[in-house]
Amino acid sequence: MAVAKRKLANGKDFIDFQTDPSRYRHWKLSIDGEVATLAMDVDENAGLYEGYQLKLNSYDLGVDIELADALMRLRFEHPGVKVVLLRSAKNRVFCAGANIRMLAGSEHPHKVNFCKFTNETRNSMEDASEHSGQRFITVVNGTAAGGGYELALATDRIIMIDDGSTAVSLPEVPLLAVLPGTGGLTRVVDKRMVRRDHADVFCTIEEGIKGRRAVQWRLIDELVAPSKLEDRVTAAASELAGQSTRRGPSDGVKLSPLDRKFRADGVDYGYVKLDIDTAQRIATITIRAAEAAPPATVVELVKQGARSWPLQSARELDDAILHLRNNAYETGTIIFKTEGDPASVHAYDDFLEAHRDHWLVHEIRHYWKRVLKRVDVTSRTLVAMVEPGSCFVGTLAELVFAADRSYMLLGQMQGDNRPPAKLELSRANFGAYPMSHGLTRLQSRFLAEPETAKALEKEIGRELEADEAEALGLVTFALDDIDWADEVRVFMEERTSFSPDSLTGLEANLRFAGPETMESKIFARLTAWQNWIFQRPNAVGEEGALARYGTGQRPAYDMRRV
Amino acid sequence: MAVAKRKLANGKDFIDFQTDPSRYRHWKLSIDGEVATLAMDVDENAGLYEGYQLKLNSYDLGVDIELADALMRLRFEHPGVKVVLLRSAKNRVFCAGANIRMLAGSEHPHKVNFCKFTNETRNSMEDASEHSGQRFITVVNGTAAGGGYELALATDRIIMIDDGSTAVSLPEVPLLAVLPGTGGLTRVVDKRMVRRDHADVFCTIEEGIKGRRAVQWRLIDELVAPSKLEDRVTAAASELAGQSTRRGPSDGVKLSPLDRKFRADGVDYGYVKLDIDTAQRIATITIRAAEAAPPATVVELVKQGARSWPLQSARELDDAILHLRNNAYETGTIIFKTEGDPASVHAYDDFLEAHRDHWLVHEIRHYWKRVLKRVDVTSRTLVAMVEPGSCFVGTLAELVFAADRSYMLLGQMQGDNRPPAKLELSRANFGAYPMSHGLTRLQSRFLAEPETAKALEKEIGRELEADEAEALGLVTFALDDIDWADEVRVFMEERTSFSPDSLTGLEANLRFAGPETMESKIFARLTAWQNWIFQRPNAVGEEGALARYGTGQRPAYDMRRV
Repeated sequence: MAVAKRKLANGKDFIDFQTDPSRYRHWKLSIDGEVATLAMDVDENAGLYEGYQLKLNSYDLGVDIELADALMRLRFEHPGVKVVLLRSAKNRVFCAGANIRMLAGSEHPHKVNFCKFTNETRNSMEDASEHSGQRFITVVNGTAAGGGYELALATDRIIMIDDGSTAVSLPEVPLLAVLPGTGGLTRVVDKRMVRRDHADVFCTIEEGIKGRRAVQWRLIDELVAPSKLEDRVTAAASELAGQSTRRGPSDGVKLSPLDRKFRADGVDYGYVKLDIDTAQRIATITIRAAEAAPPATVVELVKQGARSWPLQSARELDDAILHLRNNAYETGTIIFKTEGDPASVHAYDDFLEAHRDHWLVHEIRHYWKRVLKRVDVTSRTLVAMVEPGSCFVGTLAELVFAADRSYMLLGQMQGDNRPPAKLELSRANFGAYPMSHGLTRLQSRFLAEPETAKALEKEIGRELEADEAEALGLVTFALDDIDWADEVRVFMEERTSFSPDSLTGLEANLRFAGPETMESKIFARLTAWQNWIFQRPNAVGEEGALARYGTGQRPAYDMRRV
Repeated sequence: MAVAKRKLANGKDFIDFQTDPSRYRHWKLSIDGEVATLAMDVDENAGLYEGYQLKLNSYDLGVDIELADALMRLRFEHPGVKVVLLRSAKNRVFCAGANIRMLAGSEHPHKVNFCKFTNETRNSMEDASEHSGQRFITVVNGTAAGGGYELALATDRIIMIDDGSTAVSLPEVPLLAVLPGTGGLTRVVDKRMVRRDHADVFCTIEEGIKGRRAVQWRLIDELVAPSKLEDRVTAAASELAGQSTRRGPSDGVKLSPLDRKFRADGVDYGYVKLDIDTAQRIATITIRAAEAAPPATVVELVKQGARSWPLQSARELDDAILHLRNNAYETGTIIFKTEGDPASVHAYDDFLEAHRDHWLVHEIRHYWKRVLKRVDVTSRTLVAMVEPGSCFVGTLAELVFAADRSYMLLGQMQGDNRPPAKLELSRANFGAYPMSHGLTRLQSRFLAEPETAKALEKEIGRELEADEAEALGLVTFALDDIDWADEVRVFMEERTSFSPDSLTGLEANLRFAGPETMESKIFARLTAWQNWIFQRPNAVGEEGALARYGTGQRPAYDMRRV
């Protein structure tokens, strides 16, 4: 389905994932003690791309970038907030879901990456609830359709106004011939545990379900008369605040803008450098260790705030990954490198471990967890290069374990007198950063030998040279400098010659050995099916439902079942 | 990708899933006491369709239909067999996998259904091993590539000849731009627990991996010198036979050919009737209860053999489902109905339950389990209609719980003096027929209230009228005869107007609430990704890898990552 490349409405030539509340066009974040209100008020004339209007609180990636930013700020800037009210600032409409014209006119890669990012954002709401005691209540004051209801599904409690007309719905199948692509189907049956036959009925009724039945079928939690709505919301907020485990101060740390310098072939951040080799279709992300030692106290860490090494480097890595995913489709491989003093990385890991119960440390570690999960579901070949001068220790070593394969240099490189590369484990490799399917990367790596994953704890803090790291199964290949250049070059040439689609499928299947969770089911079962459907003429063809939506013409379907 | 519809080589106008050893063209099944040998010897001139040759023990659906038949016969006809040697009858080649020309020239629905059936067949090998103590050993005497290695992966032990050239490989990604579509990726990391980076290397090396590395990386179990191969295979067979729990007699029951009468609009079997309404795109499968009471003893059951009601009805239902899936793509909905005396169905369930440890009863119940699993992964809307005269009891009631939704008539239909319909649970609903993800259909249905699923055991044997069945959550809608006709008609008309693709995705996501297992991961994560790739121009386009394979021209890929 050739769809003309759309123009970004802001005149830029790339999608920027950085924003801040002063620039929000679609959301209003307000804080009142322990309770925050995140009000959706989409500016229909401020779509990310030209060519559509965001009517009825429908959204595009730009709206979701602001939401993701607000959720980050709630974690870091507002550690005192225990309850977030997710509501609409518009009358009689909550949210109409993903904008259909936007979807209809988007290229396949944009559709897929739009859904991936929105999924990660919904997951981060559940992460805030589960791990930071920041509970979410949705107040549905009018139609919550498709992605609108999926937003609600990602929260802890759904309160709906009982006005005789407000309904929740997932009309994608009857209306658009696609799936609810932001976790909806999975959350309906796996999180809210709606009975599967009820779910089938619900997902095939265009107008959705309202009133008592919505409660009986577990689609929402409460139905409240309009006159009692505000009182009930206030009471529910108090109730959830009372249950919250969150114990942060009212003032957090300000997420100041990232320092970024865009070059023709990459981006320079403070601790992260992104280099894109367009001809070879390879990106290199280099993460630099801090020069300075960790702060002496957590008070000092709070003072450093967004400039502290672990938080700044995570934000930069996150931005670099999102940039590559959404702005550099042709870049098929990401090489992870590190630079700096391994002792510094280890000292930071130890510092974070020692202060793990402090609210900011807690948030930083959970943020690193989410960034690493974002790496895991990135549809690019991931490679780690462990070379002299690198500092793949603990948290940064997770990138080696997240990689599809890793290369480590044995000894020194001719003409380079830096000492041989070392790999080093820290306590952080043993539970701080679980993958979406619930296992640590080491557990998933050593599924065949759980005792090995466990025994590796004994290696914490030991500097492992390449032969040892290979023998312990921590890197794929240890190569000396005679083989290094050739082996790596041949691998890169071969890899970048393969079909990107088959690599995406391969990697998505090999990376997640072991169990599945609701979160991993969303990226596996649901997303993969949605991606399939996003290719099918019934949805995206010229006579398909997306193109015909709103034209008055019915879509023409190929009626064969596959 | 329009691909011209291929002609079946046998001149028929449908794919027939029934065969027997006297008609095999591709396999030789021989029995020697406790050990059977299943030798693959594909007749390259006996492809299912015209237009390709099955060289080098490559296979198409026809080859797999014979394999599935042989596996069924090993369960039922050869209950004394404890070990099955899966080997090649050809020199220096084990199996080259799915035939590439066949794939390249197949329509999308055929590709998908071919993979689905081969997956079910591989799963049935693992089912025989786990539940019937019939252990499988693969003897790899030459290239086991792609689907060839995937066959080996489905067995318990892989012994490879150490001749310096024999290798195992999954060359799909580098060679064909598709995935190993028969569980290979999942089994490599989840069953054999190959380390994910090793798996990445393995799946991107066209020529595969041989020798010691294949053992070290857990890809195979043993490497044996050519001169010692036969002795080693014999010893391994004895070893596994010694561990087997199988305790059947040497003679089983003969799986006589099904009696089928093909009509223009369906098929008449003994206990099953398939009616296809082509205009409405709806098929109705009606299962009839036995008129006669269950046999008094298991000896009598063995005498009835393939004519016994539970075995014959399961085989007929299995065949009907496969017929619909592969020969009636446009039929989007399957309605399940039953007819006959509920007491008869209950009596059979009680009989099977009482004799559950008898080898034949054991096999019949596990076969019903597999047929019901086949229903679960069938990409058609499944509906159960519980009407007067029906007998949805126990085993047959599983079809109600497998359905996407169910309708039950309240009271009588005007002008029909049969008593109101009843639904009835038996012991069989509480563990005999787990779904692929490990839960029973009732457990998955009542995920929100595990105590309800448990409490339903108290209802075993009680005849539940429609209002009770609805109140207990066992049917979706109970309707009286005034509403029945209209409600059902409107539902059917709506349903069959939706995009078949979106329904397939919807149903695949809603049917499997709860955990995932290796088996369910194969149908979810792996299959969904493969289906996506089977749509992508890089694989199936005119310049894609499947079309260009063997032409000497390199495929031209769209290099964008999605």
